[in-house]
Amino acid sequence: MTVRFGLLGAGRIGKVHAKAISGDANATLVAVADAFPQAAEAIASAYGCEVRTIEAIEAARDIDAVVICTPTDTHADLIERFARAGKAIFCEKPIDLDVARVKACIKVVEETGAKLMVGFNRRFDPHFMAVRKVIDDGKIGDVEMVTITSRDPGAPPVDYIKRSGGIFRDMTIHDFDMARFLLGEEPVSVLATAAVLVDKAIGEAGDYDSVSVILQTASGKQAVISNSRRATYGYDQRIEVHGAKGMAAAENQRPVSIEVANGDGYTRPPLHDFFMTRYTEAYANEIAAFIAAIEKGSKISPSGADGLAALALADAAVQSVKEGKLIKIG
Amino acid sequence: MTVRFGLLGAGRIGKVHAKAISGDANATLVAVADAFPQAAEAIASAYGCEVRTIEAIEAARDIDAVVICTPTDTHADLIERFARAGKAIFCEKPIDLDVARVKACIKVVEETGAKLMVGFNRRFDPHFMAVRKVIDDGKIGDVEMVTITSRDPGAPPVDYIKRSGGIFRDMTIHDFDMARFLLGEEPVSVLATAAVLVDKAIGEAGDYDSVSVILQTASGKQAVISNSRRATYGYDQRIEVHGAKGMAAAENQRPVSIEVANGDGYTRPPLHDFFMTRYTEAYANEIAAFIAAIEKGSKISPSGADGLAALALADAAVQSVKEGKLIKIG
Amino acid sequence: MTVRFGLLGAGRIGKVHAKAISGDANATLVAVADAFPQAAEAIASAYGCEVRTIEAIEAARDIDAVVICTPTDTHADLIERFARAGKAIFCEKPIDLDVARVKACIKVVEETGAKLMVGFNRRFDPHFMAVRKVIDDGKIGDVEMVTITSRDPGAPPVDYIKRSGGIFRDMTIHDFDMARFLLGEEPVSVLATAAVLVDKAIGEAGDYDSVSVILQTASGKQAVISNSRRATYGYDQRIEVHGAKGMAAAENQRPVSIEVANGDGYTRPPLHDFFMTRYTEAYANEIAAFIAAIEKGSKISPSGADGLAALALADAAVQSVKEGKLIKIG
Amino acid sequence: MTVRFGLLGAGRIGKVHAKAISGDANATLVAVADAFPQAAEAIASAYGCEVRTIEAIEAARDIDAVVICTPTDTHADLIERFARAGKAIFCEKPIDLDVARVKACIKVVEETGAKLMVGFNRRFDPHFMAVRKVIDDGKIGDVEMVTITSRDPGAPPVDYIKRSGGIFRDMTIHDFDMARFLLGEEPVSVLATAAVLVDKAIGEAGDYDSVSVILQTASGKQAVISNSRRATYGYDQRIEVHGAKGMAAAENQRPVSIEVANGDGYTRPPLHDFFMTRYTEAYANEIAAFIAAIEKGSKISPSGADGLAALALADAAVQSVKEGKLIKIG
Repeated sequence: MTVRFGLLGAGRIGKVHAKAISGDANATLVAVADAFPQAAEAIASAYGCEVRTIEAIEAARDIDAVVICTPTDTHADLIERFARAGKAIFCEKPIDLDVARVKACIKVVEETGAKLMVGFNRRFDPHFMAVRKVIDDGKIGDVEMVTITSRDPGAPPVDYIKRSGGIFRDMTIHDFDMARFLLGEEPVSVLATAAVLVDKAIGEAGDYDSVSVILQTASGKQAVISNSRRATYGYDQRIEVHGAKGMAAAENQRPVSIEVANGDGYTRPPLHDFFMTRYTEAYANEIAAFIAAIEKGSKISPSGADGLAALALADAAVQSVKEGKLIKIG
Repeated sequence: MTVRFGLLGAGRIGKVHAKAISGDANATLVAVADAFPQAAEAIASAYGCEVRTIEAIEAARDIDAVVICTPTDTHADLIERFARAGKAIFCEKPIDLDVARVKACIKVVEETGAKLMVGFNRRFDPHFMAVRKVIDDGKIGDVEMVTITSRDPGAPPVDYIKRSGGIFRDMTIHDFDMARFLLGEEPVSVLATAAVLVDKAIGEAGDYDSVSVILQTASGKQAVISNSRRATYGYDQRIEVHGAKGMAAAENQRPVSIEVANGDGYTRPPLHDFFMTRYTEAYANEIAAFIAAIEKGSKISPSGADGLAALALADAAVQSVKEGKLIKIG
Repeated sequence: MTVRFGLLGAGRIGKVHAKAISGDANATLVAVADAFPQAAEAIASAYGCEVRTIEAIEAARDIDAVVICTPTDTHADLIERFARAGKAIFCEKPIDLDVARVKACIKVVEETGAKLMVGFNRRFDPHFMAVRKVIDDGKIGDVEMVTITSRDPGAPPVDYIKRSGGIFRDMTIHDFDMARFLLGEEPVSVLATAAVLVDKAIGEAGDYDSVSVILQTASGKQAVISNSRRATYGYDQRIEVHGAKGMAAAENQRPVSIEVANGDGYTRPPLHDFFMTRYTEAYANEIAAFIAAIEKGSKISPSGADGLAALALADAAVQSVKEGKLIKIG
Repeated sequence: MTVRFGLLGAGRIGKVHAKAISGDANATLVAVADAFPQAAEAIASAYGCEVRTIEAIEAARDIDAVVICTPTDTHADLIERFARAGKAIFCEKPIDLDVARVKACIKVVEETGAKLMVGFNRRFDPHFMAVRKVIDDGKIGDVEMVTITSRDPGAPPVDYIKRSGGIFRDMTIHDFDMARFLLGEEPVSVLATAAVLVDKAIGEAGDYDSVSVILQTASGKQAVISNSRRATYGYDQRIEVHGAKGMAAAENQRPVSIEVANGDGYTRPPLHDFFMTRYTEAYANEIAAFIAAIEKGSKISPSGADGLAALALADAAVQSVKEGKLIKIG
């Protein structure tokens, strides 16, 4: 079976998915829609698909699944429309910045029986997957403590931050999902600290750029998350999982692994400087997993519930910073 | 000038200091005292010094300085006695488990004008010192975030934990001091989470074995500390400092650095399995710094105030766990 | 301009090139030929191209360039035919196992003015390219000594070895080319040692499986090559270049870079176990460079002369082993 | 039993041994002799021993063993004198630069039944010992190929080179010994290449500064040695052993193991810049092994025969360079 795709949104991340779909032997990109015709045309000509309206894709008989890469505030509406249209849906995170809206959307998905996958791409990074496999194989025993380091090469424009819901909802949310993925048990409490150390304009916009978070599960398992909007040496993305029998960690990735030595020491190049080059394989694996789940009719993960759980942790972190106390979940 | 030493306490750590003093060209070990005569005799014969009573060392004219390695509950009293006796004092941490008692002791030290150094040996580890030097040289800009990972190879006997004041006061206290050493600014708030994941007996004794802590300074700098009484792969001791211009980190240490490769992969040996072998150089450097400060009449660091500050952070961490909220310092 | 390709040979390496050409925005795969129709059909259906005979490709007006992936003993003849047919030619190494035959073939290429690129894929590995760039940028000064380690995960079938010209001509030849690429000066002498340590059957076939080679240039620069048909830990491919001002090295590559620690130590996974996965990017870059050279009309490298030079070094190594002496080149 | 030592030669390496002997619980430094009284006095006052003449040490009843650190051209004579005087002898390498003289000296040692240890300190480096142990434990199977990289931070004065016997006899000789130590089988042939790339004055003195060597044993095991008098990044000392079942390697050593990251990449400090700091532990272990062998009456290794074997390989390497051919040993 070949899964026939419609792509909603032809921006930066839309292009990534267009390429992944076109390169997948089990999928075809049939059509693309975007508010900017030129953006849609560019993808259409590069990958040999049609430009259509969202309405046309919704009604199309030759499309099985959609990938939603439109602006965040359209996600929940589009998910509901395409769930009702009987399409399988892959949606970039987040579903929405409001928990109530997310819950309402998930309800529609459940009622329609639609398949919904949320784009937590990092679960599909080969290195992080390998750490998860080490855990699943029992090699480090029961997980006890997780450390996640996630630092961006630079701060985004303040305009973006105003729309994004802030650092906990746009950046840490990936780490909340990763913590859940690695802990294997739901966090029940959140402690967070936040400050503005990188860019005062971020603070003026009401957000933070440097945050530390502790999550704890009912049995006492802990995850520590360290985030910053600054990392001069590249995109810092590390995970470390400690279990009763040992430790598993994924190292940082760099475009080339060479070393140059002289009187100043031994120098390896900076890390990837952009999430799209860092997570190239993750994006391809993610769409492949979505395609495979549709083909096999198997359970989709991460689901809408995963998106909701990560958002709830982000909200709790915001509250913890404001109130200076531990926030319970659920 | 040669600094002439009296050693109080001939146990495990006393032996370490006896060896360091004997091997230092600017110091002589004159006498040793211990409640167990055999322990004192062993050091006396190994290093060619006398066995004396504490009183005799207190009154001795041929002794300039003492090293206090006796049980914790005797530290404050001995510091006061030897401060009054005009000796320079090196005391193993902690001064006392009670903040009020520590303050009273420091007051005596100040009134007598005595020199007091507190044994936070890790400040003298060559690798950690090198990280501090990178900061001082301005190579990573203003410090923003610190990550400290400190995991023991195994849990101590529950008896020890009952006397030690618990994990925050006997183990994390080193990391509180290291955080202060690296942040270069006083923490003003503490958030902590704690659990029993390693040994139920520790929980029954009222303590924890797995803890996560976030410290924050007035300007928003953050330090995250991760502690466990379990590390199957050896004594895990890492620091990582992020500044506005870059990052500096000290790697773990192992007795031999070889690598063996076969079909299972590339394997390097476990880390040091004991704090004394891990910190051999740190102990020697620490006593050398104490000797140098006496010789030059220079300021001693870490001081009694440093001991007090770390203890206050430990107390705040205990309180944060109990009350589920951020605890302000000072 | 789009370069239109004919593919000669639809085996393992043919598939790699078919995929690279199809994925390149500046190229189209028009036709494929193979003695086994099924092999050609498989590629034709996977990448949407035609199956043609070699003769048809030779005569085709809609084909600008060919990629020769047929058995070694057909290479020189095909190069001559397609040079005369006015096509640009990419040929897998070697051109031929006989130096005289290679020279004759290159003569035809020169006479016809054809473009010929020889498939020394490793020059296009991103890590090795980065080392070459470090040299070109003057960061390590004049190159003095090169160390190349190249070990296969396992020995090939003896049948292959009988046809391949032996270890120096099928395996070390890549390292001879790499040494020339890195030294930046022609080797003028060869010293080699060889033994059978891995598989007696290889010795019975008249070849070796474990060899060490020293090359030296006129100015005294040296390259040391170490080869084995055995490496239990994966495909070992390292280069190290020492110059007057410093050193540059490319590290081994593994599919996932994680580390697992326990009482046995810290273990990273084995390396890639196959040249095609190890050199995936190199194969794609290689074809992209060929396409770019055709488009721009720029000089092609590595050329037929490069293929000849590496073969001459292989012949000299064979002779050095047999005669127990240094063999001069040229 | 305490082994009572006389030290012959109070220069740089004499001080290293004086310190090691004084710090060893099973040894005492009784006396030191040197042609320069001030040098001897310095050691005598630092370690509390007497200054004596060589003759007095030879005749002394309170001395069991001597350490010979005098100039090379006195080694063989002193070994013979002290062998006849019934002392155990530790002699810095080489015994002599002339094979015939070494053989004559060893004959005297054998006739007198004296204990003689030759100072190949690297066998006692903890990292290299750990590699040897991996081999002995069968973890990498039968040894097949060895790679030794040994590069000095800088070239010695030309005066030294004139007296030292040249690079093969003063520098590579350590690697010849290491190759024998790791191969576990005697080399039967030597191939060597040499050039002057670092310092023309070395060439004018008739020596080389950049050499590559291949050793081979009767069963075909190979060792490749790469030497240079230049390494801007510190004292480069690596070994790598490939066996039928796997690989074992010892990494380079640096004084501090930290890493600093910024826009230029991740930088670790240079290596040790001096053989004495690089091999501090090796020197201490070496003397401890000598003391232990005397105490236990056990076999001493490395012996005079080991010194002779390494020198013979050095001579063969010189000959191989001159004659451009493989030189057979023995």
